[in-house]
Formats: sequence, C-alpha cells, structure tokens
Amino acid sequence: MSSSTDRAVLFGVIMAGGSGTRFWPLSRRRRPKQLLPLLGGRSLLAATVERVLPLVGKQRTLVVTGADVADAVREDLPGLPVGNVLVEPAGRDTAACIGWVAWRLAVRHPEAVMLVIPADHVVPDGAAFRGAMAAAAATAHARGGLVTIGFRPTRPESGYGYLELGDAMGAVGSHEVFRVARFVEKPVREAAESMLAAGNFLWNGGLFAWSVAAIRDAIRLHLPELAAGLDAMMADAAGVGEAAAVARHYPTLPKISIDFGVMEKATTVWAVTVDFDWSDVGSWAGLGEVLAPDGSEVRVGDVVAIDTSGTVLVSDGPLVTAVGIHDLVVVATRDAVLVVPRDQCQRVKELVELLRAAGRDDLL
Amino acid sequence: MSSSTDRAVLFGVIMAGGSGTRFWPLSRRRRPKQLLPLLGGRSLLAATVERVLPLVGKQRTLVVTGADVADAVREDLPGLPVGNVLVEPAGRDTAACIGWVAWRLAVRHPEAVMLVIPADHVVPDGAAFRGAMAAAAATAHARGGLVTIGFRPTRPESGYGYLELGDAMGAVGSHEVFRVARFVEKPVREAAESMLAAGNFLWNGGLFAWSVAAIRDAIRLHLPELAAGLDAMMADAAGVGEAAAVARHYPTLPKISIDFGVMEKATTVWAVTVDFDWSDVGSWAGLGEVLAPDGSEVRVGDVVAIDTSGTVLVSDGPLVTAVGIHDLVVVATRDAVLVVPRDQCQRVKELVELLRAAGRDDLL
Repeated sequence: MSSSTDRAVLFGVIMAGGSGTRFWPLSRRRRPKQLLPLLGGRSLLAATVERVLPLVGKQRTLVVTGADVADAVREDLPGLPVGNVLVEPAGRDTAACIGWVAWRLAVRHPEAVMLVIPADHVVPDGAAFRGAMAAAAATAHARGGLVTIGFRPTRPESGYGYLELGDAMGAVGSHEVFRVARFVEKPVREAAESMLAAGNFLWNGGLFAWSVAAIRDAIRLHLPELAAGLDAMMADAAGVGEAAAVARHYPTLPKISIDFGVMEKATTVWAVTVDFDWSDVGSWAGLGEVLAPDGSEVRVGDVVAIDTSGTVLVSDGPLVTAVGIHDLVVVATRDAVLVVPRDQCQRVKELVELLRAAGRDDLL
Repeated sequence: MSSSTDRAVLFGVIMAGGSGTRFWPLSRRRRPKQLLPLLGGRSLLAATVERVLPLVGKQRTLVVTGADVADAVREDLPGLPVGNVLVEPAGRDTAACIGWVAWRLAVRHPEAVMLVIPADHVVPDGAAFRGAMAAAAATAHARGGLVTIGFRPTRPESGYGYLELGDAMGAVGSHEVFRVARFVEKPVREAAESMLAAGNFLWNGGLFAWSVAAIRDAIRLHLPELAAGLDAMMADAAGVGEAAAVARHYPTLPKISIDFGVMEKATTVWAVTVDFDWSDVGSWAGLGEVLAPDGSEVRVGDVVAIDTSGTVLVSDGPLVTAVGIHDLVVVATRDAVLVVPRDQCQRVKELVELLRAAGRDDLL
C-alpha cells in the first residue's frame, strides 16, 4: 500500500454545529463551546482550523455550522473564505452534515478525500495531528472504505466510544492500521476496564477520512432515505441555487449520527492508530485536564486565588476570587456564576434544565 | 432604685461610621456593611433605626457616620430628619464620636440619657431590645456612672470581649444589674471556655447607656485631651457654626475607642444582663448564623442551588448557581465573585489586601 497522499485532493470538513450546556454559564445558545475563548483567548474552533490548514489549505477548509451561530463562526474565522462556512438551516446530526458536504464535493471534486474533524477537540500537537490525518487520508485513498482514527486508551474512560480491532493491515508511517471488528458505545466502568486490559480496543475519537465516493456509497447503502434527500437537494440546487435548495430540503433530512447510521453498519472500516494527546473537553473538569494535565490549577481570565488546589477558575467578566478551596470549578460571567465540585461538573446540565423550566431563557 | 425612665430624656445614638472588608465583595468603601441589603432587602442600619425609634422617637434618634458614606446613609434613612445625621469629617474612633454627641447634647439637653447603639448588629426581637435599653437607661439615670449591656454567653466565643461581673445590684424588671469588675479583651479559645464555665462573665456587646453628664465627666477624667478638643470645637461652633467647627477640630481629636479610652478605666460601670438573640454579624458565616440559626442554607438575591448544604449564597446582581457544594460561602456582585469555605470566611481580608496591593482600587 502507498503512504503517499499526493494523488488525493484533501478537504478538511470541520463540524462546528454542536451546541450544548456543559460549559454553561460561559456557553450559551448563540455561543457554543467551540466558540468559547478557552485557549488563551482563542476558541477551540479557531485552533482546529489552524491545526488543519497546513494540511489542506484555506480554500479546501470547510466549516459546517448552525444558523444560530453562523455569524459568530464567521467572526471567529476572519481568514476563511466566506463561502467555506456552510450553514445548516436546522441541525440534522452528523450523517446529514457529512452527506451534504460529500454530495456537494461530488459535483466538482468527485475524487477528493474528506477529513472529518469535530470543532471542539483540543490537540496540543498540531504536527502529530496532521501526520495522523495524512495517514488516514492515505489509507482511505489506497484501500477505499471508511477510515476512523483510533486513540490508544490510557485509562478506563467510560465517556468515550471504543473500537474493537480486527486484522492488522500493516502501517502507514508510524501509524498501525487495523480492520475495525466492531464499534462499542460508551461502556460502563467495568467494561472499560476490561477493554483497557484486553489491549485490542481503541478510543473512537470521531475523526474520519474517506473518499467522497466511499462515503456516498456507504450512505446510499445504509441510509437510503438520506441519500435520496441529498439527491433531491442537489438537483434542486442546480435550478434554484444552493441556498434555496438547502433551506427547502435540509430540514427534512433524516436526523441520525454518522456513527449509528453508517459506521456501525459498514463492513469496510479501517482504524489508523494514534497516540497524540487529545481531549474532547466534555466538561469544565475536562478543560482542566487539557490545560493542566498534572492536575494543577486552571485559570482563565481575571482570577485571584489564595491557598487553593485542584480548582478550575474561569472569569468572563467579573473578578473571580477564591480562598482555601479545593477541587472546585468556579465560572463567572456578567450575569451568572456557577460553583460545582470538579468531579460533579457534568451536573451543570441539571442546573440548565432547572433554569429552562423556570423560564430563565435569557440566561441560556 | 427606680425602674422608671420617665424622668430621663432618652436619645438614641447610632454609630454608623464603620467601614471594613469582611463583607467584600458586597461591601465597598462607599457601601459598608451596615448599608448592605442583607435583611430581606433592608439594611442593618435601617433595621437598627426602626428598632430604636419606638423607644426614643424620630427627633431624638441621631446617626453618626463618615463623610464617605453620608449620602448613602441619608438615602437609606429617608424618614429621619436630615439634621439628625451627624457626619464625621474623618474617622476618630468611638470615643470622639460619642464625645461629640455628648458635648453637643450638653448645650440643649444636659439632662439627657444617651443610648449608644452600633448600626451593624442584628437583633430579631426589637421589643426585647427596647426593654433592655430602657432598663439600661433607668440604671444610668438612677445610679449615675456608665452602663453597658452584658449578654449571657451561650458558647466559648473568642470573637467577643467579655465583662467580669462584680457585686450584684438587684434587678430592673427582668434584668439583673451587676457592678463590672473588669473588661476582658477578645480571649483565646481556652480562656473563653474557662469564662463560660465560670458563669460570672458576660459578652460585651458594645451597647451603652449613660447620662450626658456621666460620660462627659468620664471623658474629662480619662481622656482629658479629647475633652479639651471637644471644648474648643463647641466654643468655636458658637461662633462659626457647627459644620465649620467640626471640619476644623474633629480631625485633630485623639483617636481611641470608648472601650480602651474610657470603659476599661472607669470605676463606676454597671452591667445590665440580657439574653435576647443578638449578633454583630462579623462575617459571611456570622450572617449565616443570624439568618439561619439552625445551620441551614442562606440565600440572598437571585440564587439557584441543587443538592447543597450549609452554604451561604449571596447575589447582588448575577444569578448565583451551585450544585453539590457544602459549607461554602459564595458571594457575587456585577464585578467580583468570592468563593470561600464557611469556616474560613474571615480570610476575605487576605484577598482584599492582595487586591489593594495590586492596585485594584476599583474593586475595593
């Protein structure tokens, strides 16, 4: 097999459509996690784009996002061509999002390889990331089928999905390639420990590579209703223009994730193994693990602390002060403050639900 | 001895000059503790005035405060005659403050009895308070000398000063009266425990009663320099007016507390014993003890909490939210947030010092 990617035209497809409540009160409906200035004033999205750019170039970097946050995304990425930000009129999950890009690329770049990259990951080593994505692209180009990036697990994490590895297929550079035997959804702790001990399970990081042809074939096979909807949308686009066609068809597309809808059903899936540091920063505690992997203090914004340890202190406005506290998360904005133990910070969802039920939409 | 007070003209002298950092970030230079809306939107000062009024009447309620906060005090007390707010051009501690009022009253009410009342105490039972102050006034009127209110201690509190009781002098109504043998400064824990066990020590609450003549005599005897300064100020006032005289003389008066300067040296001091609930609310934790004596949660302002216990959550602007925290104090204003364990909240002083050293005067 070839380790060269120079025959494939690479497109970076950055999925920035997510919203969520796990970073409340900093994240809001119109300012989701990927737009928060968590990385020394830079957003996760901007960092993701910068990480991808050297591999695919500005013209072939596409960002797919939602209508609610499209303006904020464009502001966050002033260097990107305006036409490279694709706006979903309604969120239809990742299969529709990826399908739209694939059907679109099929018109003018049917030979392209797509790299699918979530906008909200933190990856400190950009070069390692690009090396891995290039290996995945080469694998997709050489073998066909669908390629996923598999991270060697370092702990029995129950917050990630897993890949069970099948046959070893050799290596691309330093990256071993395996056939994927099956996908495992987020496991309970005991199952995660067993998989860690077994050694032939990797974390499924949600990073993919495939040719436009391969993903279109897979969608036609496993999600025929989505394929038909995309066919109709693109046919309409040739007449009324893409914007009008998308506005008309996109909201009616089946809503399903690429994992459930395609990856778990596909028979030809390859895993490219990597081991660079990576986090999907799923919570305030996760941010702490990324910014201070040694478990030390995390400070974002205007913070003064005395005699604290293990804390994540974040200000987006008011001065945040703390004395004598340990293993707490404190986040403050101009209109809301959150205090929660570091190991319970996923419970911010309960708070957000309570606020929603109380009609405090101005704070969500 | 007589328990009647109808021969004495009572003046309530509310000392509202204090500033401090123990309620930062809610308290600031221009909004000290006694002006904070801690009591269901009402300030400690306003509650103090309301508590005293039925005993002395509006015309004989005097409030002494500092120039920095005088406007805020007048706003907080719209029902009080403007001339009843006396403004110190500079803080000279309590002996000068009390002396000023005594010298002033000597001109037109030389027969009056002064009730001296700090503005920052919390006393839930106003009637019990007035009964005790009336008994103190009657004692001052009947016996002469200086009268202090002594609280029966309920715990080995090291944050209060103590009175050691001497001879029992009978009772006024339900209030026993003793000669005070000596004053004891804030003790260490062991000493506080010994005094609690001994039974003949009371908490010194900083509430006093004395005739104008008695306190003037005591100041002349123990603080002759202060007496001379006050004589000069009042003589000048007869010529240039009180405001000009006070501006000229007051800042030069000796700076000493009434406790150190007079009470500890005076030979004729009576203690009137009381046992109503009372707190000087010296900290955020102290506020918790006052507002929720059972140790339960304290909420002030816009607060949403899930699964918390023993917390004091205070908002003066932003929504304060908490999940799964215990025994913490969280206070938020528009520009600053404090998080500190309930049993360490006196350490807010360390924070304030740090901010002062860092030149963050806008936050102090």
